[in-house]
Amino acid sequence: MSSGEDDLIARYFKPLATDPGALGLTDDAALLKGGGDDLVVTTDAIVEGVHFLGNDPPDTVAKKALRVNLSDLAAKGATPAGFVLTLALRTADENWLALFARGLGDDAAAFACPLLGGDTVSTPGPQMISITAFGRVPKGRMVGRTGARPGDRILVTGTIGDAALGLGLLTGGEVAGALASDPAARDFLVSRYRVPQPRNSFAEAVRDHATAAMDVSDGLAGDLAKMMRAGGTSAVVDADKIPLSPAARAALAAEPSLFDRLVTGGDDYEILAAIPPERLDAFLAASTKAGVATTAIGTVTKGTALPLFRRAGEERRYERGSYRHF
Amino acid sequence: MSSGEDDLIARYFKPLATDPGALGLTDDAALLKGGGDDLVVTTDAIVEGVHFLGNDPPDTVAKKALRVNLSDLAAKGATPAGFVLTLALRTADENWLALFARGLGDDAAAFACPLLGGDTVSTPGPQMISITAFGRVPKGRMVGRTGARPGDRILVTGTIGDAALGLGLLTGGEVAGALASDPAARDFLVSRYRVPQPRNSFAEAVRDHATAAMDVSDGLAGDLAKMMRAGGTSAVVDADKIPLSPAARAALAAEPSLFDRLVTGGDDYEILAAIPPERLDAFLAASTKAGVATTAIGTVTKGTALPLFRRAGEERRYERGSYRHF
Repeated sequence: MSSGEDDLIARYFKPLATDPGALGLTDDAALLKGGGDDLVVTTDAIVEGVHFLGNDPPDTVAKKALRVNLSDLAAKGATPAGFVLTLALRTADENWLALFARGLGDDAAAFACPLLGGDTVSTPGPQMISITAFGRVPKGRMVGRTGARPGDRILVTGTIGDAALGLGLLTGGEVAGALASDPAARDFLVSRYRVPQPRNSFAEAVRDHATAAMDVSDGLAGDLAKMMRAGGTSAVVDADKIPLSPAARAALAAEPSLFDRLVTGGDDYEILAAIPPERLDAFLAASTKAGVATTAIGTVTKGTALPLFRRAGEERRYERGSYRHF
Repeated sequence: MSSGEDDLIARYFKPLATDPGALGLTDDAALLKGGGDDLVVTTDAIVEGVHFLGNDPPDTVAKKALRVNLSDLAAKGATPAGFVLTLALRTADENWLALFARGLGDDAAAFACPLLGGDTVSTPGPQMISITAFGRVPKGRMVGRTGARPGDRILVTGTIGDAALGLGLLTGGEVAGALASDPAARDFLVSRYRVPQPRNSFAEAVRDHATAAMDVSDGLAGDLAKMMRAGGTSAVVDADKIPLSPAARAALAAEPSLFDRLVTGGDDYEILAAIPPERLDAFLAASTKAGVATTAIGTVTKGTALPLFRRAGEERRYERGSYRHF
């Protein structure tokens, strides 16, 4: 790291390194104190032009980079413990960095997930932010992907498809046409793309009740297929029950062909969980307590077929359950 | 992650995920079991065109990406526990990936540092590999940067400047001229640039005896200045004692102006440690036992001036102790 990079780190990131384990960002390493808990580790990168757009506000880019990782921790039932950041920058644009660091710091505080360390490198190519985040769970209690059993109910938090529509709005095309006359809906959908709402308040409920869980990042259909495959199961989904926001409903009413994009488009960062029937009431009560809307959308079934989506009397299995943006 | 990426991960990286905490790379997260030890976390990225060259062999790129992190763990006195990988690729070139994964797997096994998880993203720009590595130390025993005290001896492992000369050879210029007639020296120096030799066998000695330590990645002069500044101290270095390889001595004999590049060029991945005089004998004995050559090059002094380098009767303080490659 050159001394120019040291200066940038001292100016913009050291104020965020409030945790003692960060050692004030003056060391090559950070420290996570030992304890009885297991440590959950997740890493996700976002790339300019792929996961965010070059003209996205820097503070929302920072928030998205952290939140996609927080979302993984929530789905595993883990409490955030901190993160390290790799920032690949074309130039050291101080305005961009100041806004980026502010967004990152706000979220690190809001989610109690402090910056512990990182690396800043220069790149001639698109900017990239890679974050590795840490969470704690009581020993042996991380929620995996493999534990769903036939008969478990399938639940999802929040609403599905908003971010895919938001990206569609930012890149033009039929979504923009469908919502041409509804600026409030447009703003909502774009904000869902730019700033995910990870369900960390819900982590304990997932840990206490789910047999399997993951966050929906690559499309509901594809991610459900992954979770079912991991457990050697299949699923039936009542697709009319998939929770949609008013904005997504409006877009769908204007352009019915958008439905597939809603369930395959990704960037939802909601939690998909399998819950045994006898725990459903307790899970829903915990959901209410956490202030997170949760909707039952289907049931785990035997077999290894792709999940079956039933909608308005038609049946569909998504061979390609994850939309590819590029 | 698209299903194409899932296939790549299953084919090339799942065979490396031998640790139970990796969950076979089928989850969004990995698990580090809790215990009494503290966890040391370090993250370092390498970028094509900056830290490695586009035509470097893929297996050496993988080894370098992991080893620059292993070197940080060694300098902190930590035993490797595993790592997560973010791979930003332009294209999924299967030949490149197969060689990359083989190099990574060989080193993960050799250093007992298993792959725990990761993320693969596409980028239109230069390829980048970001690794976050974990190490364990007994509670409270991580070696920091700040603990050096006046009177401590300054020691460095291995030899300094080889990698900077190796990069100089690969990019042409005066180094190539100086070594035009010595192919064995050229090969040695290039290999020192491409495949660092992190001193993980030495971690315990560092932990047992050093008051401060760090790895030399950005140039000996600059990194020593950082470590002294972190502890509120200065240093006097007997620059004639700085350990040089036969190849570096040959280059220096042919082109004396290369000396500054040796001590500021970086990519050494040797360990710089401050050792109290009363522990020096024990440290050197541990060094012999670990099979790592270690050389005393100076002494920590009071004050906050930049370290003073004495060489052949001349004195020099390096204002810019880290060479900038670009």
